[in-house]
Amino acid sequence: MPDAAFPPPVADLSAFLEPASVAIIGASGDPGKIGARPLRYLRKFGFAGAIYPVNPRGGEIDGLACHQDMADIPGPVDLAIVVTAAEHVMAALRACALKGVRGAVVISAGFGETGEAGRAAEAEMASFAARGMRVLGPNNQGTVNLITGAVMGFNPLLEWVERFRPGRIGLVSQSSGIGFGLLGLGLERGMGFAHLVTTGNEADLSFADSALALLEREEVRVVAGALEGVKDVAALRRLAERSHALGKPVVVMKGATSRAGGRAAASHTGSLAGGGAVFSGFCRQHGLVEAPGMDELLDLAQAFSGPRLPRPGRRVAIATGTGGTAVLMADALERAGFEMPGPSAETEAALRRTLPAIASFGNPIDMTTANLGNRSLFLETARILGADGGYDSLVTVVGPAVTKSGVDYARQIVAAAEDVPAMFVSWTAPDGEGQAMLREAGIPVVPSPQRLAPLMALAAARAAFGDRGPAARPALPGREVRLEKARAILAGARGLQLAEHQAKALCALWDLPVTREVLAPDAPAAVAAAERLGYPVALKLQSAEIGHKTEIGGVLLNLADATAVAEGTARLMEAARRHAPGAVIDGVLVQEMVRGAGEAIVGVVDDPSLGPAVMAGPGGILAEIVEDVAFRLVPFDAAEAARLREETRLSRMVGGVRGGPAWDAEALDALLARVSVMADELRDLVSEIDLNPVIIRPQGEGAVIVDALLVRKS
Amino acid sequence: MPDAAFPPPVADLSAFLEPASVAIIGASGDPGKIGARPLRYLRKFGFAGAIYPVNPRGGEIDGLACHQDMADIPGPVDLAIVVTAAEHVMAALRACALKGVRGAVVISAGFGETGEAGRAAEAEMASFAARGMRVLGPNNQGTVNLITGAVMGFNPLLEWVERFRPGRIGLVSQSSGIGFGLLGLGLERGMGFAHLVTTGNEADLSFADSALALLEREEVRVVAGALEGVKDVAALRRLAERSHALGKPVVVMKGATSRAGGRAAASHTGSLAGGGAVFSGFCRQHGLVEAPGMDELLDLAQAFSGPRLPRPGRRVAIATGTGGTAVLMADALERAGFEMPGPSAETEAALRRTLPAIASFGNPIDMTTANLGNRSLFLETARILGADGGYDSLVTVVGPAVTKSGVDYARQIVAAAEDVPAMFVSWTAPDGEGQAMLREAGIPVVPSPQRLAPLMALAAARAAFGDRGPAARPALPGREVRLEKARAILAGARGLQLAEHQAKALCALWDLPVTREVLAPDAPAAVAAAERLGYPVALKLQSAEIGHKTEIGGVLLNLADATAVAEGTARLMEAARRHAPGAVIDGVLVQEMVRGAGEAIVGVVDDPSLGPAVMAGPGGILAEIVEDVAFRLVPFDAAEAARLREETRLSRMVGGVRGGPAWDAEALDALLARVSVMADELRDLVSEIDLNPVIIRPQGEGAVIVDALLVRKS
Repeated sequence: MPDAAFPPPVADLSAFLEPASVAIIGASGDPGKIGARPLRYLRKFGFAGAIYPVNPRGGEIDGLACHQDMADIPGPVDLAIVVTAAEHVMAALRACALKGVRGAVVISAGFGETGEAGRAAEAEMASFAARGMRVLGPNNQGTVNLITGAVMGFNPLLEWVERFRPGRIGLVSQSSGIGFGLLGLGLERGMGFAHLVTTGNEADLSFADSALALLEREEVRVVAGALEGVKDVAALRRLAERSHALGKPVVVMKGATSRAGGRAAASHTGSLAGGGAVFSGFCRQHGLVEAPGMDELLDLAQAFSGPRLPRPGRRVAIATGTGGTAVLMADALERAGFEMPGPSAETEAALRRTLPAIASFGNPIDMTTANLGNRSLFLETARILGADGGYDSLVTVVGPAVTKSGVDYARQIVAAAEDVPAMFVSWTAPDGEGQAMLREAGIPVVPSPQRLAPLMALAAARAAFGDRGPAARPALPGREVRLEKARAILAGARGLQLAEHQAKALCALWDLPVTREVLAPDAPAAVAAAERLGYPVALKLQSAEIGHKTEIGGVLLNLADATAVAEGTARLMEAARRHAPGAVIDGVLVQEMVRGAGEAIVGVVDDPSLGPAVMAGPGGILAEIVEDVAFRLVPFDAAEAARLREETRLSRMVGGVRGGPAWDAEALDALLARVSVMADELRDLVSEIDLNPVIIRPQGEGAVIVDALLVRKS
Repeated sequence: MPDAAFPPPVADLSAFLEPASVAIIGASGDPGKIGARPLRYLRKFGFAGAIYPVNPRGGEIDGLACHQDMADIPGPVDLAIVVTAAEHVMAALRACALKGVRGAVVISAGFGETGEAGRAAEAEMASFAARGMRVLGPNNQGTVNLITGAVMGFNPLLEWVERFRPGRIGLVSQSSGIGFGLLGLGLERGMGFAHLVTTGNEADLSFADSALALLEREEVRVVAGALEGVKDVAALRRLAERSHALGKPVVVMKGATSRAGGRAAASHTGSLAGGGAVFSGFCRQHGLVEAPGMDELLDLAQAFSGPRLPRPGRRVAIATGTGGTAVLMADALERAGFEMPGPSAETEAALRRTLPAIASFGNPIDMTTANLGNRSLFLETARILGADGGYDSLVTVVGPAVTKSGVDYARQIVAAAEDVPAMFVSWTAPDGEGQAMLREAGIPVVPSPQRLAPLMALAAARAAFGDRGPAARPALPGREVRLEKARAILAGARGLQLAEHQAKALCALWDLPVTREVLAPDAPAAVAAAERLGYPVALKLQSAEIGHKTEIGGVLLNLADATAVAEGTARLMEAARRHAPGAVIDGVLVQEMVRGAGEAIVGVVDDPSLGPAVMAGPGGILAEIVEDVAFRLVPFDAAEAARLREETRLSRMVGGVRGGPAWDAEALDALLARVSVMADELRDLVSEIDLNPVIIRPQGEGAVIVDALLVRKS
């Protein structure tokens, strides 16, 4: 892991995006071959630098002398595009490094995804960075600079694109298919882009490296990207930090979030895929905006590419000439948690002075088709609503009842955007000049009304993160002492899964509140323990060899006196003998009974690519039926814990359920933060923790871990 | 309500869609006026019939003699387009009826939405139907026949559309903005349509009337529509019945589902009924396909417009040349409940013989870019997968790596569709000839991979409904006897809300299982009742004037002996005196304690436009926190009740929760069906019922209503 105080330098992509000279290794004169494509696209989009085809056969390709070897090229070469068969790639790259090439796009496939030899080759590709040559790929399709037209790669999309539309969006994708897919869909929508970078197998430059390099560029206002596996979580975290520092959003879409999808990813890019929920937690924690799909990724990228970041707030005014569509918009906004309060009396009076009598003056405000005949009606309406002061955003739906170009309406929208805190548009009409004007002005615009609400919700979350900044990392002195004691407890465990009393002893090292309890070897000891704890008590059979103690009747609750405890102990021992003959029994755990206001489930998973994450959600029956949990990477503080909790239905429960008392939410947050420190410090020793239930007592009375399961790393 | 045995005839839309002659009342020669538009569009799209401008000013408009009055028109007139000011509309319509006009499009606004006089005018518009003239509108924008080009209305969209693309989709919309919006977005996507009908205020022809008329037409294979309010639920039900009988899907999108401004509900059920949930239940019950948004409405309409209805099944194979996008597809399909099993050994061997070595042979099957060079590779792969027999559907993602036209790939897809049970395509590349070929062939195609999965899920549900047909209406003899007794109980209630014991007495009339219980006026009577019922018992304060008895401490549970019951009764009476001094107290309800395997919430709401509907979902804490309920209009049978239950998380619970016993799901279904009959028979007397909780006992042991709240109609 890189030292946070000395982060690695931002990758220099200038060799890829602004090369003065390009070599095409494996160039071909046969237009049907892939080797012919790079030259074709360089010329088609007007690359002005030197081009050197390289092929051992020599000769001439399309009027250019074909060099048999890199060494033969007379001048310097900034970038190499490698399209040879896999077996010739490493030799070509070594020649490039010798020649002083600064960047190589390795389009050829057949490396990490094919086995050990391929992985070794990728490791060597990564090593060229130390000699000043960065590599994109292998198994990728290169880069496109849409501002200058420098295409350093190949994709058949480039056959039919006639001209690029420059913009402020930096596009990155591990999968070239998705990357060029997004580019194609975006261009079709009339969107402009600054650059596209595809990273493929990521032998050297990763998704996060490339995204960060784009983000740091002046011409880029937002980076939008698609990734499958996360190769380096520290790099992704740094990308998020820079996104916040620069005030430029990063929008990501994660593939391979399903088991089926994960399987496909393993065979596709050879990357390990993490679970979607942990990644979502990471995004929320670090201020990355997660798009659920390609459509939304493009919607968000467009919305964030303007000179001003959209800040939707909560109170929305809708003003439109198409009432029916406004209703759809209102439905969707309400579902997304927005409010549409009516205008103040003063505002309503002003609207009545401005709009025709048959208009609607509530919210949505329906200007009626009068808007079509009056070239300033929307602008006037918007100014009145802006002056109201009660609205954070103004939304308008441009329906089909504008002419195709819609320039009049668009001009009013652009002008009105100056007078309202935030402006959002659903252009539910064919694309035209008007929509292009809005994009140009950086006003968020989507093609159907229902798509605006989720976009606004994500933009609102991004704005809130921007105001708040990343959470502080909690400090808890005494790490080494805790770890030494923890190692001793873990060493005493017989299996990978610890017995409950051991797991709780471990929790107690981090001052986590656990039930008062005593491990008793026999009935007399159990009774003595119960007398000390006070009745009623619970009895739990303890054995590392009995994983699911509840299922064999190994848990007894609410034992009210000494007789019940003595008989109960005998019953548990008998159950153990019957169900697990020969198992080593540690004894019975005599435990205070805990009553509280509610239950939560808290857990720790070790995500294969993101690392340990804490999970929280409603406990008890809800944990079983609703599976309503959220995640955060560790460690985090109590403020972040509160946000984690708020992402689940715990948000509705902490105020009290069914007339019950309010929960001690602060105690739960403190507990979560402490669990996160524990998981962080135990990251090399523990793979899984399950605290279920955690009972939360009424406000001011704390929370208690009632059961704990912990799995150590082998 | 129309008699089911003699349904009204299907409306004849031929006057609107195929008129031989058209009068334009309020025609204008000023191109800036709305009155000029109808003539412009009639000519632009080549209407071949007679056109008669009508305007009291007379003269000539665009070379046509302008008649001062309808009576002056020499020949017959099929259709009148009315664009005069509101105050002249009724006179014009009366003249039309006299003239024998068969249809009128009333574009003018300013009727029902403005007040009593407007509503009276709309009632007169409806009355023309009896004289053979049907009316669309007022406040609508008419109809478009995209096959012949007959445009009977106006919308500025028509300014820029150059040519219509005929298709098999009938489009209906209450809102003209949404209707023309859908048309415009669809045309922009390259979709074809048969007709568009907008219904506006629906003085005469409603959404359901128009949709049914389109559905019955030979040239229409699917009807897609947008509605806000439901004016006539019987007509909508008939539309659904004909959709099933004809095997032609109806796709609907409902606007105005937001709760903002909805009335405050007395019961839990009432508050859960907002947000369009009752309408969604109606759609599922009757086989209408509900689209969540405009994008999806168009996706579904296209998918259902082919010669063969898509039947996705559960097991999906994905074969594509763009691996990254296939991963996104797999993620989305898994979320939507589909399975992607790997191919059989035999199939895998065949794939290995066909595809290049670097392909992936699992599922998704990645054919790699080899697919681009080989013009039959997808077809061969599809045939192998079709022969496997283990897949219900084949999905392919066409990425940007096809040329813009994509004709080769599309041709293979069309051919392959013959050899697999169902074919679905995500065309994640710019639109082109290839995509048009797929649409032409009726193959479902969407523009981004994540949009295919929800579409497939809805198509699967539609196919399942098509196989099963609508549920039978349950029969329960003795209606009149029950109603007479019910009226007596309701007459005895002091307020609108019945006391629990009265509500349960009502339930018992429908043989619904309720707790054994006795209303006791004082402590001695309560003790006597408890002795008879057997301990432990619950005590509940009963008063019509105390609505929320739990909140004032009016419920005591688990009373174990006579002393507890006597003391408890005193405590409840004291609580009543303290919290509701002067309230009439019926006594305390002494009730058996019921233990079961789980809890459900069951309720009845009276939807203002759809009528009474039964709600069901998990009870207890889940009812409060998760709000996971579904609805069905009443009455329905136990089989439909099971489907209702399966739409909620009850589906995961009935098998047993946390190691508990399986629930008596059949008893719950029978109870739901009986509640639906009760709600149907009480539809004029009762507005709300809340049965919460209903305790479901282990399999074979039944279910019991533990608490009941019932609100009668005033």
